[in-house]
Amino acid sequence: MPAQSRTAVPFLPILAWGRSYDRATLSSDLVAALIVTIMLIPQSLAYASLAGLPPEVGLYASIAPLLLYAVFGTSRVLAVGPVAVVSLMTATAIGEHAAAGSPEYWAVAITLAFISGAMLLLMGLLRLGFLASFLSHPVISGFITASAVLIAAGQLKVILGLKVDAHNALELIWGLLQGLGRTHLITALLGLGTVGFLFWARRGLKPLLLSLGMGARLADVAARAGPVAGIALTAWLTWFFQLHEQGVKIVGVVPQGLPPLTWPSFDLSLWKELAVPALLISVVGFVESVSVGQTLAAKRRQRIEPDRELVALGASNLGAALTGGFPVTGGFARSVVNFDAGAQTPAAGVFTAIGILLAALLLTPALYFVPQATLAATIVVAVLSLVDLGMFKRTWVYSKADFAAVMATLVFTLTMGVESGLVAGVLLSLALFLFKTSRPHIAEVGLVPGTEHFRNVLRHQVLVSPKLLSLRVDESLYFANARALEDRINEAVADRPQLQHVVLQCSAINDIDASALESLESIDHRLRQAGIALHFSEVKGPVMDRLRGTEFLAQLRGKVFLSHFQAIAELAPDLSRGAAQSARAV
Amino acid sequence: MPAQSRTAVPFLPILAWGRSYDRATLSSDLVAALIVTIMLIPQSLAYASLAGLPPEVGLYASIAPLLLYAVFGTSRVLAVGPVAVVSLMTATAIGEHAAAGSPEYWAVAITLAFISGAMLLLMGLLRLGFLASFLSHPVISGFITASAVLIAAGQLKVILGLKVDAHNALELIWGLLQGLGRTHLITALLGLGTVGFLFWARRGLKPLLLSLGMGARLADVAARAGPVAGIALTAWLTWFFQLHEQGVKIVGVVPQGLPPLTWPSFDLSLWKELAVPALLISVVGFVESVSVGQTLAAKRRQRIEPDRELVALGASNLGAALTGGFPVTGGFARSVVNFDAGAQTPAAGVFTAIGILLAALLLTPALYFVPQATLAATIVVAVLSLVDLGMFKRTWVYSKADFAAVMATLVFTLTMGVESGLVAGVLLSLALFLFKTSRPHIAEVGLVPGTEHFRNVLRHQVLVSPKLLSLRVDESLYFANARALEDRINEAVADRPQLQHVVLQCSAINDIDASALESLESIDHRLRQAGIALHFSEVKGPVMDRLRGTEFLAQLRGKVFLSHFQAIAELAPDLSRGAAQSARAV
Repeated sequence: MPAQSRTAVPFLPILAWGRSYDRATLSSDLVAALIVTIMLIPQSLAYASLAGLPPEVGLYASIAPLLLYAVFGTSRVLAVGPVAVVSLMTATAIGEHAAAGSPEYWAVAITLAFISGAMLLLMGLLRLGFLASFLSHPVISGFITASAVLIAAGQLKVILGLKVDAHNALELIWGLLQGLGRTHLITALLGLGTVGFLFWARRGLKPLLLSLGMGARLADVAARAGPVAGIALTAWLTWFFQLHEQGVKIVGVVPQGLPPLTWPSFDLSLWKELAVPALLISVVGFVESVSVGQTLAAKRRQRIEPDRELVALGASNLGAALTGGFPVTGGFARSVVNFDAGAQTPAAGVFTAIGILLAALLLTPALYFVPQATLAATIVVAVLSLVDLGMFKRTWVYSKADFAAVMATLVFTLTMGVESGLVAGVLLSLALFLFKTSRPHIAEVGLVPGTEHFRNVLRHQVLVSPKLLSLRVDESLYFANARALEDRINEAVADRPQLQHVVLQCSAINDIDASALESLESIDHRLRQAGIALHFSEVKGPVMDRLRGTEFLAQLRGKVFLSHFQAIAELAPDLSRGAAQSARAV
Repeated sequence: MPAQSRTAVPFLPILAWGRSYDRATLSSDLVAALIVTIMLIPQSLAYASLAGLPPEVGLYASIAPLLLYAVFGTSRVLAVGPVAVVSLMTATAIGEHAAAGSPEYWAVAITLAFISGAMLLLMGLLRLGFLASFLSHPVISGFITASAVLIAAGQLKVILGLKVDAHNALELIWGLLQGLGRTHLITALLGLGTVGFLFWARRGLKPLLLSLGMGARLADVAARAGPVAGIALTAWLTWFFQLHEQGVKIVGVVPQGLPPLTWPSFDLSLWKELAVPALLISVVGFVESVSVGQTLAAKRRQRIEPDRELVALGASNLGAALTGGFPVTGGFARSVVNFDAGAQTPAAGVFTAIGILLAALLLTPALYFVPQATLAATIVVAVLSLVDLGMFKRTWVYSKADFAAVMATLVFTLTMGVESGLVAGVLLSLALFLFKTSRPHIAEVGLVPGTEHFRNVLRHQVLVSPKLLSLRVDESLYFANARALEDRINEAVADRPQLQHVVLQCSAINDIDASALESLESIDHRLRQAGIALHFSEVKGPVMDRLRGTEFLAQLRGKVFLSHFQAIAELAPDLSRGAAQSARAV
């Protein structure tokens, strides 16, 4: 493993891997590039049509972004290009501004890629990569699952040859059920046939080729070509039987040539309206990309740097905008294939870009007879692999709050659309976190006989004294829970007429903000008026640093003890000698 | 002290204090009520005009709400009625819907009180009182200070007899400065004279009366009557010199009689538009009321119950809406006066309501010649006591993040108005908290020689081993910081070629959510691929309860140790025997 991967990545990562590039690496990268190219051609066409764009736009979006990512990206194997969820979000964002298929629609897509690229770049330069961590796993899972269902249902419409006008998933599914009788039979046959073939090809094709005597490496490449084979076969069938004259919708004329040089619109009102969708697309794309990149980098003990991934993805999207593309990001499936196929460096991405460029130059006439239903079938098979039903069960068992976040994101995305669903999920998960921290676990603790350890009186047989109350607060103190502590202490004091000391064990308090400090002041004030002293134990270094110098600590009548046992030894010596009875407070 | 205050308050608190009501209590309550009534008459007139309403509405809003609070309230001394900040918010909310002074304006105010009352009642029944704790002290301080400045500047306009059209504090102050030359001299003389007199009366009147031989109790009552004296004197001057013919604006005809029975508008579109302002008014009023109530209750070792305070304030506002009033809450100044004057039970509030009722029936003709500038002076003096400049310095010293929240709330409230300012402050303080928790303090810890204690290697001379890494995470693990832990561990592992064990000391981890669990899984996965085992120590009971039963714990190769020292003793026995050198990791 090259030394660079263990230390800092240089400003342009290409300088690190470029220097040690040799023939063996070249050969690995070329094979990986071939496999990814074969996989990417049908996917890029399909995702372009999912985004409501002409198929060639998918090819355009798979050239410049790959080259730019190869220069700036810190992952060695990430395959950048059109992906399912981002394409769906693109269609949603543009759908409000132009009719699908129109030149204006394409212009808005280019502008969206440009804004999203600029945002990613800016976030990278401002080191805002951490913001992505506010998308929790449950929200991402719920969102991806709901998006997959939305995409699959939408493509089913194409596969069945139906026309359904729908604003959300329920209307769409209802429309599909109502329209089943009007299914276009030949289209459905081609589409469903391709779906079946692709599902089978994933598992069955490679063993079959191996059993037919094909070499392992070649079989691997050939098996990845399943979607290409499906497309070729259905296109041939369509041409041979002239099925488009029977009503089977085909891709039609795809312009041949280099990607065009394009320029985004700088209409301010359009930018304003696209700002929120562009931000959501950027964040979702970044999260998807980084999580794939991190998983794959870790397998080879390499690292990626999130803030520089933002820059690289920003550059890729700006590149897409300038060459007639639409928003792109690092895709899960293709990156894994790239990794498995042995890609060693981002040069594999460069070779893939060259492969797609050749396809754009030479292959497009061959796409004329490709049925739209076949492309839709490619998408359905790809997105259904994103659905992770086991996650629902695991989350339900582990945490009901997290499960609520998953379900809310899922339901909102299905009923209100991708943007509202994502925003609702993020807000709900933040609200649940805030709610949890606003009701901290506060345990009354007692001395475990014969030790210096303290445990929850409700869980263990421990020694307590009616003169002294020991509370352990299991949460940082901040404005939202400061009042809960006040209430808890007020309540405890009202119940204990003999009380003389309250000791707060602060081992789990990582911060005390200004509101909580005021609450502690008023707690001390009230306790003092009732003749009770407030003490602290096991205050952490950083917290103590800040408390020093406050009026609160200067005026506190009680003490701050290094350990809770020291506090008990001084304030309730009977108890610490183990002589006191295990007198539970009433 | 009656026993009831130490245990649960009955459903109707009046049943608790009503039974033990005796002659001594009656006498205390009557004196307190007299003082509060004297104070409330000018304040209620002034706050009504601050809210843009005719002065008699202030009296109406000080009758039914007091009676209802006496029945439902859990605080014994809270004085409910019109208060400055809520009146300002009322004016802001209604200003968009009707012209100040018009009958429509009053109708909207009644509807606003009704909606706000219904919301408070609902929040109380749903036990949502905890939501108020999301208003942090810095936000409240910044908001109150900014509101006081806004109110004072607005009243200065009246005191100087100027007309200024302004949409925010800056425009207002700029307009005042520009208009100084057009000051109406007699009005200004009356207004500024009253301001000076009131400031002096606060401190100087009581000692003066005492030195003139007046009894202490009587001097106290008389000193509180300062504002009444100011109003009477300026009204007499205005009548005597017929100053209203010189352009001094006076209160004019105030209808005499009982509060009218009124009914809110049930126009759905109006309700929709008033929903957000009503919610903000409810929350601000509730927070102000509860913090006053809690402070005063604690002084006598009594308790108030926030959720039932919501119900009581809800009933008070509904009462205000049905008797021609506007939004009310428990006021700071009057409640403190009520407490100091010796009020023992909410009966003092009933007597105050009777006093105000008598004023509404008999006193209103005497208000004809009261200059508006005098009422404005009353408000200026009252709100300037709300400004707490020391808080700014204290917060700056203690916490820069909290200071940022104060300043943001202050600046937003001054420039964008009370509603936006409050919302911005709350959102910012929540964002700062989330940001803080998303970057947890993760300390590498080492063994303090000769003990079983572990401390931060950066702060103490401790023993460490190149084979073992001990990390203490000072924050609960949740989605926003899960990646930070992954990054930190990735980094540490890349730097330590000899590493065999990573032990996480979990004493400060109060929760691990589903996202963090997945992160731990992937950390374990990556470490395992690098031949490193992941262990845990000092996992808390509630956290362990949830981890048990997860696949993660079942598949973890490392162990969970009860204490961190046990982990070291087993994994790096040399170190635990103190034999190892203090070998800091490279």
